[in-house]
Amino acid sequence: MKENTTGSAVLPAAPSRGRLRPLGLDEVRITGGFWARRRHVNATATLDHCRDWMERVGWTGNFTAAVEGRLHRDRRGREFADSDVYKLLEAMSWETAHQGDPALETAIAAAQEPDGYLNTAFGRPGQQPRYSDLEWGHELYCYGHLIQAGVAQTRARGEGELAKTARRAADHVCATFGRGGIERVCGHPVIETALVELARLTGEQRYLDQAALFVGRRGHGTLADGEFGRAYYQDDLPVRQADVLRGHAVRALYLAAGAVDVAVETGDDDLLAAVVRQWEATVARRTYLTGGMGSHHRDESFGDDFVLPPDRAYSETCAGVASVQLSWRLLLATGEPRFADLAERTLYNVVATCPAEDGRAFFYANTLHRRRRGTVPAPDAESPRAESSLRAPWFAVSCCPTNVSRTLAALPAYLATTDDHGLQLHQYADAEISTGGIGLRIRTDYPSDGGVTVRIDRAPDHPWTLSLRVPDWARGDTARLVAPDGTSRGVAPGTARVTRLFRPGDEIRLELPVRPRWIVGDPRVDAIRGTVAVQRGPRVYCAESVDLAGDQDVESIRVDASAPPEDGEGDTVVAGGETTTPADRTWPYAPLGAPAEPPAAARTGIVLVPYHSWANRGPSTMRVWLPSAP
Amino acid sequence: MKENTTGSAVLPAAPSRGRLRPLGLDEVRITGGFWARRRHVNATATLDHCRDWMERVGWTGNFTAAVEGRLHRDRRGREFADSDVYKLLEAMSWETAHQGDPALETAIAAAQEPDGYLNTAFGRPGQQPRYSDLEWGHELYCYGHLIQAGVAQTRARGEGELAKTARRAADHVCATFGRGGIERVCGHPVIETALVELARLTGEQRYLDQAALFVGRRGHGTLADGEFGRAYYQDDLPVRQADVLRGHAVRALYLAAGAVDVAVETGDDDLLAAVVRQWEATVARRTYLTGGMGSHHRDESFGDDFVLPPDRAYSETCAGVASVQLSWRLLLATGEPRFADLAERTLYNVVATCPAEDGRAFFYANTLHRRRRGTVPAPDAESPRAESSLRAPWFAVSCCPTNVSRTLAALPAYLATTDDHGLQLHQYADAEISTGGIGLRIRTDYPSDGGVTVRIDRAPDHPWTLSLRVPDWARGDTARLVAPDGTSRGVAPGTARVTRLFRPGDEIRLELPVRPRWIVGDPRVDAIRGTVAVQRGPRVYCAESVDLAGDQDVESIRVDASAPPEDGEGDTVVAGGETTTPADRTWPYAPLGAPAEPPAAARTGIVLVPYHSWANRGPSTMRVWLPSAP
Repeated sequence: MKENTTGSAVLPAAPSRGRLRPLGLDEVRITGGFWARRRHVNATATLDHCRDWMERVGWTGNFTAAVEGRLHRDRRGREFADSDVYKLLEAMSWETAHQGDPALETAIAAAQEPDGYLNTAFGRPGQQPRYSDLEWGHELYCYGHLIQAGVAQTRARGEGELAKTARRAADHVCATFGRGGIERVCGHPVIETALVELARLTGEQRYLDQAALFVGRRGHGTLADGEFGRAYYQDDLPVRQADVLRGHAVRALYLAAGAVDVAVETGDDDLLAAVVRQWEATVARRTYLTGGMGSHHRDESFGDDFVLPPDRAYSETCAGVASVQLSWRLLLATGEPRFADLAERTLYNVVATCPAEDGRAFFYANTLHRRRRGTVPAPDAESPRAESSLRAPWFAVSCCPTNVSRTLAALPAYLATTDDHGLQLHQYADAEISTGGIGLRIRTDYPSDGGVTVRIDRAPDHPWTLSLRVPDWARGDTARLVAPDGTSRGVAPGTARVTRLFRPGDEIRLELPVRPRWIVGDPRVDAIRGTVAVQRGPRVYCAESVDLAGDQDVESIRVDASAPPEDGEGDTVVAGGETTTPADRTWPYAPLGAPAEPPAAARTGIVLVPYHSWANRGPSTMRVWLPSAP
Repeated sequence: MKENTTGSAVLPAAPSRGRLRPLGLDEVRITGGFWARRRHVNATATLDHCRDWMERVGWTGNFTAAVEGRLHRDRRGREFADSDVYKLLEAMSWETAHQGDPALETAIAAAQEPDGYLNTAFGRPGQQPRYSDLEWGHELYCYGHLIQAGVAQTRARGEGELAKTARRAADHVCATFGRGGIERVCGHPVIETALVELARLTGEQRYLDQAALFVGRRGHGTLADGEFGRAYYQDDLPVRQADVLRGHAVRALYLAAGAVDVAVETGDDDLLAAVVRQWEATVARRTYLTGGMGSHHRDESFGDDFVLPPDRAYSETCAGVASVQLSWRLLLATGEPRFADLAERTLYNVVATCPAEDGRAFFYANTLHRRRRGTVPAPDAESPRAESSLRAPWFAVSCCPTNVSRTLAALPAYLATTDDHGLQLHQYADAEISTGGIGLRIRTDYPSDGGVTVRIDRAPDHPWTLSLRVPDWARGDTARLVAPDGTSRGVAPGTARVTRLFRPGDEIRLELPVRPRWIVGDPRVDAIRGTVAVQRGPRVYCAESVDLAGDQDVESIRVDASAPPEDGEGDTVVAGGETTTPADRTWPYAPLGAPAEPPAAARTGIVLVPYHSWANRGPSTMRVWLPSAP
């Protein structure tokens, strides 16, 4: 396998081929601003919060119970509880400010059986047999997260006990699920990306082969047809035949990411093209303005095309994380900025929305319209996962907190790449980059402000190209690029390039048109017809009842879209409009033209706040899409 | 208990008090038209279809398996399968053209235990203990349907084996769940209405007392707080404290019906007022144009206020049946025509929508917008319950077919009532009524035509009042009443009365403005903003792809609401409009005013069909609410 010839290995995905080469956590440092604040909270609060909760609800204790033969009696949590422990350890590995948890690693290793099998929900006396419920058992899913955690440890800190445990588990998977073994797949993908990454780390072909087997087997009905149908776990159609992502959103996105990894490593251009086609259709017809995916609560699935009701948006946080992983892999493979566009949208409006300001409470689902003021979730109990009244400290199914945590911990790896011609900036943050002969300082208050200054600190003595993504949200507006000599030019959404012999001290400045704009949706999305939303830079805004006079309900808002929204104090936006109180009717449907009592209306400025910041000021109602006055 | 002083006992609900007295199946005969056709299909096809399927899937066989001690191994169906057998027997009792099923009654009686306990899912060796899972076990729910079937048998045919079995079960319930017994409730209401009806039949106060206990206990958290919360089974708030129906729609509506029954029999006006208040709020904010209730698939529940997305309408058939039962009870108690209005809307647009034309396939959920052509359900397999691609012959959860069947069988009882002043017509059908000294012939082609002629065949020799409901759908239009002397007057929605000394041969004619009209919805219902629907008389219409040129998709339709829709051939309506093909965009959201490729549009007449008739011509897409061209 061809190794990356330059750059670091401290990164979550290290493809051996592709248009762009990722940079590692030792090459990119976020030094301030939006993401630095969130990464600080993640490192200092969220990791320990998750560790404490897993102790409290018994998920870490399951490994000890396994060793002590008490699992049949004492096991806690859902069948996939092991995976959250692994995701937490992965997050700890990426987060250099955290010391990790060697005792927990030892407990996990002790629970592993001699043949490499490791799962606290199956296989021991009084439990269901190993692999007796591939549809719902999540055993391979748990291995996937274990292997990702092991890879993270090896890359970030050197191989430790966790990485060795993961390697043994991977060998067990290959021995058990290879050709002539159990020729089926897991109900929940993630083993695919994990095995490819282990192959990249170790150079061992068999891990890649096993991942390719799993991707190839899916869609052939080796899983039972259950209540939600085989599309739920993408076992309805082979990956390369599907036209759009469907079924359970997290499952679909992890699988697609795994398919990209396999396609890239095996040079399977048809498979890569199939995933690109599915991504296009999904983004065009099955994605919320926030980048969120999944509109069905019942089975946490994508809905049909254009079924994107704001008030029933499921938009699971984990689907946001998985979508960023998929888009990042497609960006590396193709170099196309549209994949970074979606990743940016999803990072600011899904991933950043999940954790509370203090990093100790989370959204599992990310609705775009909240109709009822919720109650405050109990601080000491597990919450239902999709109620979304306020962020909750923990869930009975608590996949999202650790998933966001590992994403924030590894976030610097998603900012920039290199290729043979130079360096590419995909996401903007106050940061320092040092890779090969190039050193950069990036200074910005993005996304509050659209100015991004890149200062060259170190540069090779030959011309090279600095590429900067001009985001899709700037469409119809004017972005400008100022060269080191002070000359400036307009740049269109896509990629802006500066090629020259850079000298230390040279400055390139990108001026992005960050200002509030009205957004309209595709007319085929029923529930947003006749409404508008506000976006300012990459961030989607919302109205929250706590900002209305007298704590009125957001249902009362009608905005005037004929005038542009304006910047308000801090990060707020103010839109013209009115608050109305429609008269209640006995029957909510009436003949067209029937006299209706006109609603009482009061003109006012409507204060809007970034969507990711909502629900931090107590129970409220909220909406992103605002009906516009006729 | 005060018995009804006049009239028949052959009816599903016989309150001892109330503004109106119901008429029995021996007093009202439907002689032709819309409902006669459906009742004929029900009697000649649906009853046997259901009987055959229950044999095939083993639900009837469960009773034999119980007697033979094979239940732990051989039981088939979900925990509530017994209830569907009982609902079928109830339907057979009401349907005089059917001979019933004595062998099945004997099998059921044989399975009853000496203390009256009867359930094939619990209590025998190898099964869970009796009453060990009140949340989900449905044991009292099954008794409720058994008792309703027993009451039907006694009233329609005289007490037989089924009725005796039911009586023993009711005695067991009173002995087990009375004061000092298991002081809890069942996760699924229906026992409440059943016990009240048994009290009405037998005059035994203890059945009424037990029903009142169940209604009073609910809302005090005697059921465990599960995944869906206690609101799912209405155990979150006492009935008399609630402001709106919530949680699982069928559960909520059966409970409300039971609360009305208890309120009426015990003279509890506060309880009655509480249910009326909940009905008002539910109709104003949580009911589809079709009368359908319930917008959440996940837990088959009502959504929040104004969460009524057409494409995710669950609108379960059984919720329609339950809603008709509730409205009927409120009509009898209060005499207010608004309750008959909702019953009519629900009968034509939910109950009539469920069965296929041949009576051998059914909708479980009744969506108002179908985006994908479905596949034809397997003729010989149980179908998933809420896919709604086409009607299916049977479901793994198959509550709806028998529920509609018993409703159609008993339908004549819902047409008319009497009081001390005369007779009231609530629903219009070609029919004959004979009660006390009054004999009427009603001739009409309603709802295709709005003319209803009532001829007096027999009348007492003193003045009395004939009351006719003028439906709410006639609002803003002109209905007329023509007296026997030929004089005519406009009548407003509500109740039109003619008081006189009627003579045989007198004719009263009601002329209702049945013509297609555009309907708009409350602006707070997001998903229908910017759309209109068509209603013609009580029937809601829809566009179906099979009626579009080249079988285009219904998503292409934009109607022109500035011109009224017109009558088409048969029962169809034709609306002006166009079919368009919007250009696909990479990202479905754009800044307001951004240039968009104008859709290709073709002006055409859009053919609409009655909603209840859709999906009888093969797989299609369908929508009730049609975007209107700006």
